[in-house]
Amino acid sequence: MSGEQELGITESKEHSPGEWYAEVVQKAGLADYAPMGGFIVTKPRGYAVWERIQNHLDGWFKETGVQNSYFPMFIPESFLEREKDIVEGFDPEVAWVTHGGHEELEERLAVRPTSESIIAPFMADWTRSHRDLPLRLNQWCSVVRWEATETKPFFRTKEFLWQEGHTAHTDEDGAWDETMTRLEQYKRLYEEVMAMPVMEGRKPEHDKFPGAHTTTTVEALMPDGKSVQGGTSHYLGTSFAEAFDITYADENEEDNVAHTTSWGLSWRAMGALIMTHSDDQGLVLPPAVAPTQVVIVPIWQEDTKDEVQEYAADLAVDLEDAGVRVELDDRDHRNPGFKYNEHELNGVPLRVEVGPHEVEDDEATLVHRPDGETETVSREGIGDTASEHLDTVHAKLYASAEETLEGEIREADSREEILGTIGQHGGYVKCGWCGDEDCEDPIKDAIAAEIVMVPLDRDEEPVHDECAICGDDAEETAYFAKSY
Amino acid sequence: MSGEQELGITESKEHSPGEWYAEVVQKAGLADYAPMGGFIVTKPRGYAVWERIQNHLDGWFKETGVQNSYFPMFIPESFLEREKDIVEGFDPEVAWVTHGGHEELEERLAVRPTSESIIAPFMADWTRSHRDLPLRLNQWCSVVRWEATETKPFFRTKEFLWQEGHTAHTDEDGAWDETMTRLEQYKRLYEEVMAMPVMEGRKPEHDKFPGAHTTTTVEALMPDGKSVQGGTSHYLGTSFAEAFDITYADENEEDNVAHTTSWGLSWRAMGALIMTHSDDQGLVLPPAVAPTQVVIVPIWQEDTKDEVQEYAADLAVDLEDAGVRVELDDRDHRNPGFKYNEHELNGVPLRVEVGPHEVEDDEATLVHRPDGETETVSREGIGDTASEHLDTVHAKLYASAEETLEGEIREADSREEILGTIGQHGGYVKCGWCGDEDCEDPIKDAIAAEIVMVPLDRDEEPVHDECAICGDDAEETAYFAKSY
Ligand SMILES: [Zn+2]
Ligand SMILES: [Zn+2]
Repeated sequence: MSGEQELGITESKEHSPGEWYAEVVQKAGLADYAPMGGFIVTKPRGYAVWERIQNHLDGWFKETGVQNSYFPMFIPESFLEREKDIVEGFDPEVAWVTHGGHEELEERLAVRPTSESIIAPFMADWTRSHRDLPLRLNQWCSVVRWEATETKPFFRTKEFLWQEGHTAHTDEDGAWDETMTRLEQYKRLYEEVMAMPVMEGRKPEHDKFPGAHTTTTVEALMPDGKSVQGGTSHYLGTSFAEAFDITYADENEEDNVAHTTSWGLSWRAMGALIMTHSDDQGLVLPPAVAPTQVVIVPIWQEDTKDEVQEYAADLAVDLEDAGVRVELDDRDHRNPGFKYNEHELNGVPLRVEVGPHEVEDDEATLVHRPDGETETVSREGIGDTASEHLDTVHAKLYASAEETLEGEIREADSREEILGTIGQHGGYVKCGWCGDEDCEDPIKDAIAAEIVMVPLDRDEEPVHDECAICGDDAEETAYFAKSY
Repeated sequence: MSGEQELGITESKEHSPGEWYAEVVQKAGLADYAPMGGFIVTKPRGYAVWERIQNHLDGWFKETGVQNSYFPMFIPESFLEREKDIVEGFDPEVAWVTHGGHEELEERLAVRPTSESIIAPFMADWTRSHRDLPLRLNQWCSVVRWEATETKPFFRTKEFLWQEGHTAHTDEDGAWDETMTRLEQYKRLYEEVMAMPVMEGRKPEHDKFPGAHTTTTVEALMPDGKSVQGGTSHYLGTSFAEAFDITYADENEEDNVAHTTSWGLSWRAMGALIMTHSDDQGLVLPPAVAPTQVVIVPIWQEDTKDEVQEYAADLAVDLEDAGVRVELDDRDHRNPGFKYNEHELNGVPLRVEVGPHEVEDDEATLVHRPDGETETVSREGIGDTASEHLDTVHAKLYASAEETLEGEIREADSREEILGTIGQHGGYVKCGWCGDEDCEDPIKDAIAAEIVMVPLDRDEEPVHDECAICGDDAEETAYFAKSY
């Protein structure tokens, strides 16, 4: 059944990135398609990557005062309506529960598309005094949005896993600091854990989270030239707090309205990770998220089998003792070449080959997954050596992604140049922008590119004095790109 | 608003255990009621306890070959129907999603009540050869069962958090070992982490998980004399594998049917924990699950404030360095008495009091939450000392629960004696049983007690030769109890 021809990747990342991505996800054992369109099954290797993303982020959240909690997965329709009344533009497509058991419900329940409308009333309830603030809640959960688009594992699915943070603060400074703390943690996750550079920015006014004062974003560039919104952190101002009555008594016992934030990162981050680093041999994972960091493949003939296997097993123990996630692939029924291909497909960052030569010389041969670079190293101190090589693999992945990003930010000062540059190269095009949504339309209509961000700093001078589209005075710099 | 009279527990554990439990859950900040009946909000302190339960169990699962994964929260009606056809007695009351966005769905989707019917087809798909086995999957998720009963946080809620493990093996021995491995891990969780003794047993044939060959259980006795099913581990035989076509090619390339298991533990474990150890002062938590293990309360007058606060802060650093989860309660606007009450309510296992005397003598006064035992100890080595005292607190909690359990297993050899003993004392009554469900009915009808378990070992001689109800030959020992 699982013959070798089925194992390898057949699509090309360069020429058919969509098909290639789908093939890597399935063949590297990350996810499968569920029987219902729009849903996927996250397989053990995929889930293990997600767990590592979670663990890093969750640790940082907790170090910075966030408390995890869990709110119901259902939201009464009247609660969602309340949010719709408050928040212009909020009209999510949701899955509706209408029956419980054999009975029709009196009120329909939405499967949460996001939890503001069920969390905010409790935040109001728990906030009495200024001493109750800041209140920082987070939950890791799944949410459902009934969008009828083609399924792309981790990028576009009706159900997806994410975390959503919701916080309340006494004033704007506190809430704004919070917004930026989470944005920086998302950036750190991409850079330190996922080996991906990202750009920080704001969403333009017309593309903010409904009801938000400011939506900040980290944007990651994919190899096909499209931008991925990698995580968003919203400063909500007082709009949600006013609507849901999140108020507190200050030190003078006077009532004040809190300032709130929300911030979220989904398994789309994992999709971006897979797409960025992987290649035509399959999955490539940075060591920090790789379930297996090092695989040891013993190479032997009958007459050297015992000594090689023993040596390999000892090496595995040393690596494990050094805190490396190591797997010894001592399967008898597979040859080394098959094993190489399989572990490359599965994205193991570092391969250790040991044969009779290595045993004789007290050495090990290390092979880096991303580029095949090979080095024979001393057996002594193999734990430290392997850790250094894993750091090198991370650095290589980051450097490669950074190089791509740096070459893909271009300037333009006319509509034609924007269209031409994105049409030809993809990537980001920055230009002066008057701030009017109407000036995005011709680009959107022509090539489906949009303003994915503007600079975080509202006072930053625009790159050009004039709006590249209408020629009016430019208010800020717009970053146009196609996006996922 | 948050006056002191609101803080304390007003109900009595002994006299009104139901009201007392509800009050502890709310006032200790574990959970709140959601606006929809049957749903709760798990607050940070409650969720932190659940996370610690998860972390222990998840670590043990992974050490023993389990891989986490994530399957869709929705199950098409036809999939559930398929399970109904196979498994007599499987007819869960579920929440039905009938609409996505503004469209009615072609097929209704159940919000998962348990995931056998969506996981098993994938297990079939992923199992080709004997080399693919054992396949051990687990997911941590929430499930929904539309049962219309009174809400009791963590015990009875329509949505609840749990883990569900699903495994496939080549033969009965492997599957049976798996079943027992998980049961032992549940037992270990209760004993080592939650400081609760449990009894291991089997569910009687008529109360097995539908479709299972054997359902094993850990049962915990609550202070009100009722038994809680604390976790179940099912050996499913080949019934699910046959129905869902989970087959594999053995070493001779011949097709075989796999043997499967499933096992689950829900946040009901947390409910049992709260109910077992807590008291009329509020929550009591074993140190292994307590979000804060040690709270330091400085006691000072104006003239000693600086030295006491400095000393307390240094102590906190020492304890933190020793790996203790410590909180320094240096709030100025609360007096020590208020703080004692609050931390007792919130279940902090160990309180450290430091005042001018402690500073002068280089000491600290430790107070155990469960029984108020107080000891003044040397400042030197406070990290080790505190850890020892935390171990003692765990041991005290365990010993107390064990003493209760041991006194609450009684024997009876007639229907009247069963009724009288449970009626008077609660707890477990063991007796000879013929194995016929009909002999459970008169007990169930009279006092709502049932056979919560029989011994694990099928060959164990029954405690009496005759069935206590009908007088026929006894096949095994039945443990009768009221249950949650
Ligand atoms: Zn313009
Ligand atoms: Zn009988």
